[in-house]
Amino acid sequence: MRTRPLKVALLGCGVVGSEVARIMTTHAGDLAARIGAPVELAGVAVRRPAKVREGIPQELITTDAKGLVSRDDIDVVVEVIGGIEPARTLITTAFEHGASVVSANKALLAEDGATLYAAAEKHGRDLYFEAAVAGAIPLIRPLRESLAGDKVNRVLGIVNGTTNFILDKMDTSGAGYSEALDEATALGYAEADPTADVEAFDAAAKAAILAGIAFHTRVRLDDVYREGMTEVTAADFASAKQMGCTIKLLAICERAADGRSVTARVHPAMIPLSHPLASVREAYNAVFVEAEAAGRLMFYGPGAGGAPTASAVLGDLVAVCRNKLAEATGPGESVYTQLPVSSMGEVVTRYHISLDVADKPGVLAQVATVFAEHGVSIDTVRQTGKDGEASLVVVTHRAPDAALSGTVAALRKLDTVRGVASIMRVEGE
Amino acid sequence: MRTRPLKVALLGCGVVGSEVARIMTTHAGDLAARIGAPVELAGVAVRRPAKVREGIPQELITTDAKGLVSRDDIDVVVEVIGGIEPARTLITTAFEHGASVVSANKALLAEDGATLYAAAEKHGRDLYFEAAVAGAIPLIRPLRESLAGDKVNRVLGIVNGTTNFILDKMDTSGAGYSEALDEATALGYAEADPTADVEAFDAAAKAAILAGIAFHTRVRLDDVYREGMTEVTAADFASAKQMGCTIKLLAICERAADGRSVTARVHPAMIPLSHPLASVREAYNAVFVEAEAAGRLMFYGPGAGGAPTASAVLGDLVAVCRNKLAEATGPGESVYTQLPVSSMGEVVTRYHISLDVADKPGVLAQVATVFAEHGVSIDTVRQTGKDGEASLVVVTHRAPDAALSGTVAALRKLDTVRGVASIMRVEGE
Repeated sequence: MRTRPLKVALLGCGVVGSEVARIMTTHAGDLAARIGAPVELAGVAVRRPAKVREGIPQELITTDAKGLVSRDDIDVVVEVIGGIEPARTLITTAFEHGASVVSANKALLAEDGATLYAAAEKHGRDLYFEAAVAGAIPLIRPLRESLAGDKVNRVLGIVNGTTNFILDKMDTSGAGYSEALDEATALGYAEADPTADVEAFDAAAKAAILAGIAFHTRVRLDDVYREGMTEVTAADFASAKQMGCTIKLLAICERAADGRSVTARVHPAMIPLSHPLASVREAYNAVFVEAEAAGRLMFYGPGAGGAPTASAVLGDLVAVCRNKLAEATGPGESVYTQLPVSSMGEVVTRYHISLDVADKPGVLAQVATVFAEHGVSIDTVRQTGKDGEASLVVVTHRAPDAALSGTVAALRKLDTVRGVASIMRVEGE
Repeated sequence: MRTRPLKVALLGCGVVGSEVARIMTTHAGDLAARIGAPVELAGVAVRRPAKVREGIPQELITTDAKGLVSRDDIDVVVEVIGGIEPARTLITTAFEHGASVVSANKALLAEDGATLYAAAEKHGRDLYFEAAVAGAIPLIRPLRESLAGDKVNRVLGIVNGTTNFILDKMDTSGAGYSEALDEATALGYAEADPTADVEAFDAAAKAAILAGIAFHTRVRLDDVYREGMTEVTAADFASAKQMGCTIKLLAICERAADGRSVTARVHPAMIPLSHPLASVREAYNAVFVEAEAAGRLMFYGPGAGGAPTASAVLGDLVAVCRNKLAEATGPGESVYTQLPVSSMGEVVTRYHISLDVADKPGVLAQVATVFAEHGVSIDTVRQTGKDGEASLVVVTHRAPDAALSGTVAALRKLDTVRGVASIMRVEGE
């Protein structure tokens, strides 16, 4: 074993960073044996240097992140500060000074992964980011490496623990969205400002990363169709139950049937209770991958939290250090298919639509005509009436999302349709 | 991209080998893009050269496997013939002649992995074997690489599809073992001689491989406690249901509580219906991994079959080819912890015991005394009587397996115990 240590600079020492530092110290012997050389924490860049950080010598703490990543003796930079800047500049600076980078930064990778990959490649260094998607669950490495000899056609997953916790609460307790969000906040599952989670920005970033890797093409955050889950109601869950379904916020990346394009989207959807994703409870994450030869695989585990995310960071750290010792690099960006990303309108899916309608003869015929005019075939209709009001629940067969949303727009214009109570896509069948 | 192709020799062209060859041909462009050089099938060693193999040029077929792996122009040897010899000699010969090896041979790796690893290391080549455990499910790579910065404490899995199919049939249809086995055979899930599956030799080999990698120590097939599932009865399933459990054939690899030893075992066990492994149906495989930082992860997918296994082989092929181009090697054998493997007697588990007893006063007291004398604490007892006969169902708290089996031996000697109807371990709680 090499005795000279590999030097690691840590950017950020919050929930994840402090766990990374702790494990590097407490498991130093194991890490050294697995890498083939000791690893040494050479510096920790933080914003608040005065804060006491147990187990981290004060002399390692610095507020000068730029200076830290510019040191020529640093072998690996671990970036767990998140956000676009200064993270991007710090990472590219690290590459320029000869370090490899392990990052957990989903937002930056989804926004501008290409810049990071290009800098890594230019300087012959590694960019690893298992922790950016689904916390501790090995997903990036299986997609980039285990399935490198296969053709992935679909990735379907629950990649945000906060929203899964909220939806699970709504499902099991009958709570409304606000009530379930309050509970998630009280238990620390939701942040004070939950926007990134509940409006699905977080899940959309992960979908972009997964789609890019799965289909070997470039997918940016802007390419991902995004719908949050703040408008899911207890009534939607009641409808889902009648269908034998539950509701999950899903990230779905698909190759088009003709193989010539891909799509990536994040939205709430009904999935059958028999689908393995339906039983993913609380803040857990799980991702289904469908590949041509492998068939259907599922990866399940804690999708967030300090220790699980640190586990993913440290797995990458070991890999990057091994590569460094071997003077090699792991897989870089793979975008050779150059498959374009289609818009949401081209996605083929099913709709579950609840309509409030006038309770008089001919309404169903009128509604059915609108579906037919848009080329949307109806799977089932359920009609209920009470107190002069009636409701229609229509579940469609698979059709392009544009045709389905066109149908809904036309339905809204019918005099006999008093309102569209809810629209939900149906997936996982 | 390098234009000179990497040359691959394929040993075996059965269910898996023919799929490997097919995908190498049909997806040649994708593989080349992902590797950075084309790969070329340079020879296929088979036993029956006259058999027509669609898509494989006849001039590539040879019966001289030894000659094929001795060619100095071969970059990678893919071994899918199985068994100990000639596979072992062919693999070590391949290393001697400069090739790296991708193998799906669980029996050989469990029996004598050390010899293969040593040969790979001596010649600076790669030994990859994702396909040896749980078919297409990425498991070896996540354990070797993704969790390389974590501490795995437990691996608990369903790693044999044939027996899971049989047990699932028994559970859902109430069928007996023979009937379920017949159905598995008719559907092609069980081989004409099902011994390797039903007596758990196959699962034991996989447990040895998983334990060695998870705990960074050497675990051989002989170190694995093994019990087949041919004696599981419909009555056992009925008992399991009363417990809120089902029965699965589990491979369990554990680090002892004091961290100083490990155990590996394969046997049928009751697991609670709420455990994710309980809902693994048909011939699917699933493996739970518990790690200190990552928490509980699960990997699920098809555990066997030509295409899924080929997917795993080709993922390894891509990795090994990339390493070859980079003049590097992936992770080798990691046995630095040198943790000893304890015997089954030291495993801490729970027993579910059904006893046929005399229906007279004092029997329960007598039985309870035997448990107490062996230091085994009873969790629940259920007593039922009919027609002068009575039965006792005892579920214990956790205790060393030696104490539990000592208890059972002592119970058999009691005059009032007419027979031990069944003994089953309870896991996954």
